[in-house]
Amino acid sequence: MRNIFANQHLGVHAFSLKEHDGQKITISGAIYKIRKLGGLFFIVIRDGESLIQCKLESNENVISMEQYSEGNYVSITGVCQKEDRAPHGAEIKIESLEVLSKPIEEMPFSINQKLFEVGIDNNLNFRPISLRHPKQRAIFAIQSAISMLFKQGLSLIGFTEIHTPKLVFAGAEGGANVFKVKYFDRELFLAQSPQFYKQMMVGVFGKVMEVGPVFRAEPHETSRHLNEYTSMDFEMGPIKSFEEIMEVEIYLLKYIFEQLPKFCSAELKLLEVLVPQIVDIPVLPMSEVLEIVNKSYKAEDKSDLDPKGEQLICQYVFKQTGNEFVFVTHYPTVKRPVYAMEDPENPEVTLSFDLLFRGLEVTTGGQRIHDYTMQVEKMKRLGYNPDDFASYLQIHKYGMPPHGGLGLGLERLTMQLLKLSSIKEACLFPRTINRVTP
Amino acid sequence: MRNIFANQHLGVHAFSLKEHDGQKITISGAIYKIRKLGGLFFIVIRDGESLIQCKLESNENVISMEQYSEGNYVSITGVCQKEDRAPHGAEIKIESLEVLSKPIEEMPFSINQKLFEVGIDNNLNFRPISLRHPKQRAIFAIQSAISMLFKQGLSLIGFTEIHTPKLVFAGAEGGANVFKVKYFDRELFLAQSPQFYKQMMVGVFGKVMEVGPVFRAEPHETSRHLNEYTSMDFEMGPIKSFEEIMEVEIYLLKYIFEQLPKFCSAELKLLEVLVPQIVDIPVLPMSEVLEIVNKSYKAEDKSDLDPKGEQLICQYVFKQTGNEFVFVTHYPTVKRPVYAMEDPENPEVTLSFDLLFRGLEVTTGGQRIHDYTMQVEKMKRLGYNPDDFASYLQIHKYGMPPHGGLGLGLERLTMQLLKLSSIKEACLFPRTINRVTP
Repeated sequence: MRNIFANQHLGVHAFSLKEHDGQKITISGAIYKIRKLGGLFFIVIRDGESLIQCKLESNENVISMEQYSEGNYVSITGVCQKEDRAPHGAEIKIESLEVLSKPIEEMPFSINQKLFEVGIDNNLNFRPISLRHPKQRAIFAIQSAISMLFKQGLSLIGFTEIHTPKLVFAGAEGGANVFKVKYFDRELFLAQSPQFYKQMMVGVFGKVMEVGPVFRAEPHETSRHLNEYTSMDFEMGPIKSFEEIMEVEIYLLKYIFEQLPKFCSAELKLLEVLVPQIVDIPVLPMSEVLEIVNKSYKAEDKSDLDPKGEQLICQYVFKQTGNEFVFVTHYPTVKRPVYAMEDPENPEVTLSFDLLFRGLEVTTGGQRIHDYTMQVEKMKRLGYNPDDFASYLQIHKYGMPPHGGLGLGLERLTMQLLKLSSIKEACLFPRTINRVTP
Repeated sequence: MRNIFANQHLGVHAFSLKEHDGQKITISGAIYKIRKLGGLFFIVIRDGESLIQCKLESNENVISMEQYSEGNYVSITGVCQKEDRAPHGAEIKIESLEVLSKPIEEMPFSINQKLFEVGIDNNLNFRPISLRHPKQRAIFAIQSAISMLFKQGLSLIGFTEIHTPKLVFAGAEGGANVFKVKYFDRELFLAQSPQFYKQMMVGVFGKVMEVGPVFRAEPHETSRHLNEYTSMDFEMGPIKSFEEIMEVEIYLLKYIFEQLPKFCSAELKLLEVLVPQIVDIPVLPMSEVLEIVNKSYKAEDKSDLDPKGEQLICQYVFKQTGNEFVFVTHYPTVKRPVYAMEDPENPEVTLSFDLLFRGLEVTTGGQRIHDYTMQVEKMKRLGYNPDDFASYLQIHKYGMPPHGGLGLGLERLTMQLLKLSSIKEACLFPRTINRVTP
């Protein structure tokens, strides 16, 4: 019987290379680029975090570089030396090089050019390879930080992370856009949102959050829709008003954007991202928004904002205030799901909001119904059978505080922050009506 | 146009109540218990984090307490006073009380008794209510901390969080236990694991992790199986050997168990949890394990560990070493999925391991095949058509380092840590062949 011990050698981080000046170290990664310059070989290694420059002097050239093509994974041992012209201010003078694995084919396109000039189809068809380009990788390093900071930021103010089922007995958001699953001898649905479950958990933890997949069977492909996406949700109660939810979102976006450079400054720089500084976010009721938009634009549905309308109102607000965000509140009751709380002063509208960012809705939120009678009546009015929702209605029946929350689309937020032209570029492995691989 | 500002009043935390001694504060939550004691009413509020004691002196009794039953949500304003006998060493002397919402029915069982004496069926049928009992709530406060610490611990050593699709074109783990989804005009599967995707992402980030739902269509109900569960996965490369993965798991469990009391000491105490102190974890190859187990037990399949076998080997290791964990390595090749790397010294077994904890498998991990020819040949040998896996095989074709990883079941780890008798108690809303609600 033999014991192993933890955390022995987790490797040298590229970013701390300079601190190892004069030391002999071993790194490993993929060969990214080989350049011959006079009597020198420069070998750049891609190690998952960054690029590391290694140098081989030809008079010590016991290693024949010709055999090592790009795409090989290698382990390199050598002395670390400060070098201002190298990434991270240091390079490794190679003493020995060991090949760990070899590809059998050259990559379908080059991933070691400054620009990534591959069309969206090849980008997605060869996703495991295209993501290796530093600029593609950077998108998801930033996305990962956003998702971690969402959880961290909420955790700091007392939210508890939950894990709710994706196999559900009812679609929470209404409409026909639910995927059906054969579940043994019955049929279930894939969750359109964690809505019912996060509400139930407000009764337990007060403030809850979840970052997880949601599924929408929308039968069209647009630059802003995915059939599976990552929803960052929170829900909280008791609340005094639905504005409290917007306050938490402002706190959260502020937190995420302030912290982001601490976790991925290299990637933000590489993609030339301008992270918005949030002080406050303007709030406009839908009625006012429609008045402004309908002045210059004839939408098909004059009671709702379509994509063009979202762009117009964002342009208007930016012109007036310089703010790239705007909360639109009080969406029409007919446009919101069955659990939405109606405005007691005007039941035609709900105590709800969307957050628009640079012309696109990234958040939907609002206050929910907590009263049993009110919820059952609304279900009946909309043609639902309350008996089908008996387990959900337990919270209303046995006591539920005034509460609300929101869902923030991780891919949409990433797309808008990085100014990408399609949401497919902001998803590792997008699912659309036409694409299910890789 | 009106602006709102973030983070104005996120409430007073129960745990810091003492710091507000002498101050007038407002708290809100559900009435948990009302006790009349002489001329006093004691009202205990359940606020999502903890219980808070409030006191109403009868000579100031302008509020008639009789109308406020348990289950009402209220907002209470009063002066905070140190009181050693109250939870958190302080109580609130009530000045005013406002009812925020009222239930329409009494709860089906009491949630304010010390013990939670509700059978598993009612516990699950009335899940939104049973979870409000402090002992039920505590399970998931601890689970939430485990899941956060998993991500935090890995993040500290350079792992990047990823979000991979759950709608997939192929089951990664083999076997028939995949759920089918009608996806527009074709059929997809629900991911049994993020296996293929986390491998693809090793080529991008080197070290990746994901905490998310996985789906197994196993048509039986046991105390250790769920049809949907939360898998905590990581994958890393280049690695020198599969033992590196076990080293990271030891680091991680050590980190989680050391940090856990910082985040949920009250809940650990309430459930009387003994958190194991991890120094090292013994490692036994499967061949040796089977020799030991088969001495005292006749399993149906003598080449594998069944539940009884897992218990026996854990008992043996505990007797020998006092350790509640054991790594069993080198599982037979026929028992592992198509991507498992075979031992070059003995292709009958794989470079793989399970981690057993108190008699139950909580982790499956190992090294994966990175060589294209090796992977394609193994697929053919096992009756798969490599063409069906073309997008996955890109990593093998264009260059992939030696790599591996593991999946750690969040519910199983919770169940074993808290010594629960069924995994259903360790899942907020369990899905089994017989249960799909709430």
